[in-house]
Amino acid sequence: MAFRAHILGAAAGGGLPQWNCGCGNCRRAREGSIPAQTQSSLAVTGNGRDWAILNASPDIRAQLAATPVLHPTGQRELPLTSVLVTNGDIDHVAGLLTLREMQPFTLFATDGIHQVLTDNPIFDALNASVVVRETIALNTPFALAPDLTATLFAVPGKVPLYLEGETVETDLMGEQTVGVDLQSGTARAVYIPGCAHLPADLASRLDGADIVFFDGTLWRDDEMQITGVGTKTGKRMGHMSMSGSDGSIAAFAPLNIGQKVFVHMNNTNPVLDPSSPEYAKATASGWIVGQDGLEITP
Amino acid sequence: MAFRAHILGAAAGGGLPQWNCGCGNCRRAREGSIPAQTQSSLAVTGNGRDWAILNASPDIRAQLAATPVLHPTGQRELPLTSVLVTNGDIDHVAGLLTLREMQPFTLFATDGIHQVLTDNPIFDALNASVVVRETIALNTPFALAPDLTATLFAVPGKVPLYLEGETVETDLMGEQTVGVDLQSGTARAVYIPGCAHLPADLASRLDGADIVFFDGTLWRDDEMQITGVGTKTGKRMGHMSMSGSDGSIAAFAPLNIGQKVFVHMNNTNPVLDPSSPEYAKATASGWIVGQDGLEITP
Repeated sequence: MAFRAHILGAAAGGGLPQWNCGCGNCRRAREGSIPAQTQSSLAVTGNGRDWAILNASPDIRAQLAATPVLHPTGQRELPLTSVLVTNGDIDHVAGLLTLREMQPFTLFATDGIHQVLTDNPIFDALNASVVVRETIALNTPFALAPDLTATLFAVPGKVPLYLEGETVETDLMGEQTVGVDLQSGTARAVYIPGCAHLPADLASRLDGADIVFFDGTLWRDDEMQITGVGTKTGKRMGHMSMSGSDGSIAAFAPLNIGQKVFVHMNNTNPVLDPSSPEYAKATASGWIVGQDGLEITP
Repeated sequence: MAFRAHILGAAAGGGLPQWNCGCGNCRRAREGSIPAQTQSSLAVTGNGRDWAILNASPDIRAQLAATPVLHPTGQRELPLTSVLVTNGDIDHVAGLLTLREMQPFTLFATDGIHQVLTDNPIFDALNASVVVRETIALNTPFALAPDLTATLFAVPGKVPLYLEGETVETDLMGEQTVGVDLQSGTARAVYIPGCAHLPADLASRLDGADIVFFDGTLWRDDEMQITGVGTKTGKRMGHMSMSGSDGSIAAFAPLNIGQKVFVHMNNTNPVLDPSSPEYAKATASGWIVGQDGLEITP
């Protein structure tokens, strides 16, 4: 029995390169001078045999093809036990459309996130007779996979972009955006791909974990503006930045965490270029910058 | 001014390898002994500069990344003018979710197909203020892109799997499944990725075309059964097979067509293995077996 996590996709929505983006990172990724990264997803196992996928990204077909531990073991037998979705964002749910084909697994989410799927009949492609949708209450442990217990908890965030109304609350605490506490034997890992800021009770929860996978969307709050690809700040998108006095690197510095891993990096984030000063700063601060295919063990 | 077509994805829904499939073709594609193929999509241009994409497959991000003529030409400038969807199947519409990011283009479909999208609020990710949804009537020419005129026409088919009710009509003729007639200068190409059978009036339409891209889902009608991956026949899925007296190879034999190209091949189709006798038979019958990245000119 041993916990392992495999980063299927390290980038945020859009991936690297993003289909319509000509920013420096996207150009370099197309040229092959920095590694391309697919969209946000993490595979986890508690026993090395049965796997759960946290968030189903639009790139999931390519991600699974590139990951031998998740390949079919027979005509239609798979090591995949379950899929868990942490919010209704397209980068986390669109891949569910790929997981059709009458393949049994359990789909875990909060009631609020399941409702987003139910409101879209296209997700009936996951035939209810083979894909069981289990509703998980916050702060209630459940068996995510054999030898792997999970607990969902609210983190500050917002509703998906395509459900935004006239006014947008970017600091919601509820079922729309959750983190995942993972326990396997004595190992404890926490997965939070989207987080608007780090309140004290969330920091306490992370303190003492063996591994934390955390929202690495932006290096700085005005990054979309200074790279010329957009007008929104990180705060408006519901993501705290890595740098600055209110950033994640500073907020995590006092915490005792075995391994801190950034995931869900936007294509504009300079840490996606391993030769950048920002990458050097993040790693010097004790962070691992997530990469597609990287495996993390406690 | 010159018509060109670029096969973005040659496989049917699921792709090759399909995420949960251990059939011979899928195993060989994972090993690299036959070429992998992404899901059904074709890019076309009438002038070599402005492109339209016919069907937005779930693999569209990887397809665009692999296709330099469709890369951004500036921070957010693209050679993509429009996207046309020929039915509501997941392999043809799920990629629309990737084409978000406030990028302007025109989305063409029949009223019936647009309705499928409207019924799913997740497609509001394509912000209506930048992605214009144009409804196209059957048999009415329209400007798909500069120097490229298209006409939609009904072909025999069925509604998408996720919209099937208790009884399924597999020979519907209407707005659910359409073919596309493309005209650029004197060149004429026809694109029909799904077709249940070939009635006489459809055969007449194809006669004399420079290029026809046609439904190559299955080699034989009971292929899902004999490969052990499913129970449905090709007819039940709304696809005519390549082989046999009622197959497409026989039906096309009397027609005068410049180039006949199979697209939308299911992962079970033996023609996906270039060393198979079926591949040899198809090519000996004058067909090109489509491949990811293959470019076709009149």
